[in-house]
Amino acid sequence: MSQRVAVLGAGSLGAVIARAFAAAGHPTTVWNRTPDRLSALVADTPALRPALSVPEAIADADLITLVVADAAAARAVLDSAGDAIAGKIVVNFTSTTPEQTQVLAGRVGAGYLDGAAMSGTRLVGDPTGLFLYAGDATTFADAEPTLRALGIARAVGTDPGDASLWDTALLGLNLGVLGAFYQAVALIGGSAEKVAAISAEYLPFATGLLADHARQIDAKQYPDDDGSLAVYAAAVDHLIATAADRGVGTDVAVPVRSVINRAIEAGHGDDGLASVTEVLR
Amino acid sequence: MSQRVAVLGAGSLGAVIARAFAAAGHPTTVWNRTPDRLSALVADTPALRPALSVPEAIADADLITLVVADAAAARAVLDSAGDAIAGKIVVNFTSTTPEQTQVLAGRVGAGYLDGAAMSGTRLVGDPTGLFLYAGDATTFADAEPTLRALGIARAVGTDPGDASLWDTALLGLNLGVLGAFYQAVALIGGSAEKVAAISAEYLPFATGLLADHARQIDAKQYPDDDGSLAVYAAAVDHLIATAADRGVGTDVAVPVRSVINRAIEAGHGDDGLASVTEVLR
Repeated sequence: MSQRVAVLGAGSLGAVIARAFAAAGHPTTVWNRTPDRLSALVADTPALRPALSVPEAIADADLITLVVADAAAARAVLDSAGDAIAGKIVVNFTSTTPEQTQVLAGRVGAGYLDGAAMSGTRLVGDPTGLFLYAGDATTFADAEPTLRALGIARAVGTDPGDASLWDTALLGLNLGVLGAFYQAVALIGGSAEKVAAISAEYLPFATGLLADHARQIDAKQYPDDDGSLAVYAAAVDHLIATAADRGVGTDVAVPVRSVINRAIEAGHGDDGLASVTEVLR
Repeated sequence: MSQRVAVLGAGSLGAVIARAFAAAGHPTTVWNRTPDRLSALVADTPALRPALSVPEAIADADLITLVVADAAAARAVLDSAGDAIAGKIVVNFTSTTPEQTQVLAGRVGAGYLDGAAMSGTRLVGDPTGLFLYAGDATTFADAEPTLRALGIARAVGTDPGDASLWDTALLGLNLGVLGAFYQAVALIGGSAEKVAAISAEYLPFATGLLADHARQIDAKQYPDDDGSLAVYAAAVDHLIATAADRGVGTDVAVPVRSVINRAIEAGHGDDGLASVTEVLR
């Protein structure tokens, strides 16, 4: 049976989340602290039912998503919900620290999931949009068919704080990709669009290495099939020299070289690149 | 008409290149300095015709690929080819510096392309394998239908040295992705395979940003649709603090923070992330 959903918060992320639930056929109620955003949203998407108070919004809902500004706002919304929240699933997409997450999870009790919209507002409702969830496994299993309306739904851990840990770690991955891309653009010069087009053809190869290297890391065995650390060290030195010759920043390359060097000093010179994880943790 | 190909050098890359040409129906001759690798290769792939000397290998060839150990070996092979090389296309996959490339290109004259196998030996002959070529545009146009047997064939510039510049820049991109992945693995702990699986679902989003950010860089206009530099600065500070709390290296994150800071000091605090390219070059 299609779960009934309440979306509390109709900012840029809350609005697209509400639309995606409605588009997937879930009866969806929306509430916002200020009514102007709410009326604009409901005018755009007539399937959404506006609610003038939090208790009204959640009264008939099975699953409640919380998409407000910060942890203090999330706490205020939960306080205003009162006892009506008992027995319902709360999925909190509000950005909070692990400590704030613990406080909010304790306030809700059973049925709390912390969520992270990894594709921002861009891909909500798209089958490739990625959403991470952390919390009780039974709650996730109950919510998952509904959450699939938003995109890919992945459980990352049973501690509610796990979602923000993964969020932070994947932000680092995103910044690594973008930072290295900006450096390539600076190094090559000319059209950044051309660098992006060829990078997009190249990245599936780099991405394809992740699974192989992950297996190496889990097994703590690092064959040099893709080149030894000593080979990479020479290649990165060449990259740094080429950048320096051209007056381009080496901000991303230099620390990579220093990690490689630490791993070589630790005896991994003949091992593959993934052996650097031994000195990163 | 199907071009006839000679592959000079039957090491790990040369061998898979020769196999891919033969599989695509090109009459293919192979030569190697030491005959043992050659006989093993020809035993595996009977469509390949072995040659005992460089002149014999190239006598009937339209397109010659050079896949040897280094620039000195490439020069020695070209010397042993003599005048028979005139009028043929030479595609050099041997790793060389831009200066060595200029010398080799001058030696061959017209018909020289420098090539870079961006997917290593892994995806040769696969339609997703990426190969970059630099040199005269007419030569590339003549060679391209044949080179497609190896994978994606992209011309990156008319100066033969452009291939190694792109090779270096994309190596930096690969290292940025892998380095950031290793950091995420260290930060999250537990199974690296799980981090790889979820990263693989996340990276298409990050990759999707490249084209948008490239357009911003080319236009020198950096809207903050994906967050302002000030927002990213706070997020990276959170990433660094989380890593430090867990005793995980912040090698990749700290320099990203410093580039963001330089860009904020240069007045880009309210601009989007791609504005950091203004301080990288």
